[in-house]
Amino acid sequence: MMRARVAYSGAIHEAYPNGEGLRLADGRIVREEDVVWLPPIETGTIFALGLNYADHAKELQFSKQDEPLVFLKGPGTVIGHRGVTRRPSGVTFMHYECELAVVIGRPAREVARTQAMEYVAGYTIANDYAIRDYLENYYRPNLRVKNRDGGTVLGPWFVDAADIADIANLELRTYVNGVLRQRGNTRDLVTDVPTLIEYLSSFMTLAPGDVILTGTPEGVANVDVGDEIVCEIDGLGRLLNDIGSDALFGRV
Amino acid sequence: MMRARVAYSGAIHEAYPNGEGLRLADGRIVREEDVVWLPPIETGTIFALGLNYADHAKELQFSKQDEPLVFLKGPGTVIGHRGVTRRPSGVTFMHYECELAVVIGRPAREVARTQAMEYVAGYTIANDYAIRDYLENYYRPNLRVKNRDGGTVLGPWFVDAADIADIANLELRTYVNGVLRQRGNTRDLVTDVPTLIEYLSSFMTLAPGDVILTGTPEGVANVDVGDEIVCEIDGLGRLLNDIGSDALFGRV
Repeated sequence: MMRARVAYSGAIHEAYPNGEGLRLADGRIVREEDVVWLPPIETGTIFALGLNYADHAKELQFSKQDEPLVFLKGPGTVIGHRGVTRRPSGVTFMHYECELAVVIGRPAREVARTQAMEYVAGYTIANDYAIRDYLENYYRPNLRVKNRDGGTVLGPWFVDAADIADIANLELRTYVNGVLRQRGNTRDLVTDVPTLIEYLSSFMTLAPGDVILTGTPEGVANVDVGDEIVCEIDGLGRLLNDIGSDALFGRV
Repeated sequence: MMRARVAYSGAIHEAYPNGEGLRLADGRIVREEDVVWLPPIETGTIFALGLNYADHAKELQFSKQDEPLVFLKGPGTVIGHRGVTRRPSGVTFMHYECELAVVIGRPAREVARTQAMEYVAGYTIANDYAIRDYLENYYRPNLRVKNRDGGTVLGPWFVDAADIADIANLELRTYVNGVLRQRGNTRDLVTDVPTLIEYLSSFMTLAPGDVILTGTPEGVANVDVGDEIVCEIDGLGRLLNDIGSDALFGRV
């Protein structure tokens, strides 16, 4: 099943696809442009992978790592489908990153990779923006690269794990103003989903609502104010957001 | 005012100091050993500073940085006063780190350091454990150093900002099994609290409940299973926790 969380008529609702529109849990049928899409889940810890597609690591000129490269994103960075991410003034490189987001369904501690998928509730799409200007720092990634307002776009749907036949063969595509700019497949993950769960749960108890952003393939590029970005993953839908200006407070 | 959050008799209560014991918000007087102390606040984003006391940076052999070194800690790492932090089997360096924790009280975006303290709700004590074995990683700090079960001990009290006369002159002390092992003063912060709020709010909207762990002074050292650690800060109380074994699941 696919489900969204939307704000409509004074309340937050679970919502389901209904032709071109949405059906709310209370039975009302609404147009998708009449709601505010919220992130489809309430997030716990947000783990994010760096350099987890070999072709992307190569485009950023990094060598292969022995251990998964994981950092955290704060809950305040998260927005939903059709949200606006504001481009900071004065930066040169604001990169979209289309990623498969894995949502944990039950507590997981010291889980072997062979059992790991039993702990997955489902999936959504993430657009994990990076401001690549800020590379110099002893701590990496510099917090300013990834921990920014609107820097983690999630949605539109939460899709049950049972509905995805093969998580290791999903194509990811990013369109900028309608033009295909990034394309990859989860079969090319350096560390696959079960191994990531084994790794993370070896030192940390994963909790329901925790999310693993599994990394992005080759094809990242700068975006500018006014651009429309669509991230698409087989079976998970199309996640849309717009790039706004940081200068015009309160306006896109 | 000082207040705690405790679990007692089937519910979670706000609680206040009452002689040797506690007074619950509903008026009951209880012994402090009869409750389970929870973290005194519900945490949002947890920002943590590295190398923010010059003497500590020196003991770890780091040079001065141009920009504050900040990483995030996940919500799943947090436990309260009197909680047990389990020492992973097979590691060599598990370090306590006594830190002043600053709790944000209202949304803060692009706040100047001169106004920054208006956004602070209050303070608590943090013991921000680090497993120093895991240094090798392109991303730093390696997630395994800091993002572990029980690795962020917070409490016992949330203390209103108005009750602390001078946040830039608080002594921090850590006792291991009753012996003073770490001593510092917030006057020696490399980047002080108002400047940290200015820095973080320059790229990220801070939210009520967000916490800034301001770093630890010189004097960190390894702890072992069975050790009792007390972190003390002037005006904020004494935060106690015990080191347990990771091998004996369900037992200290």
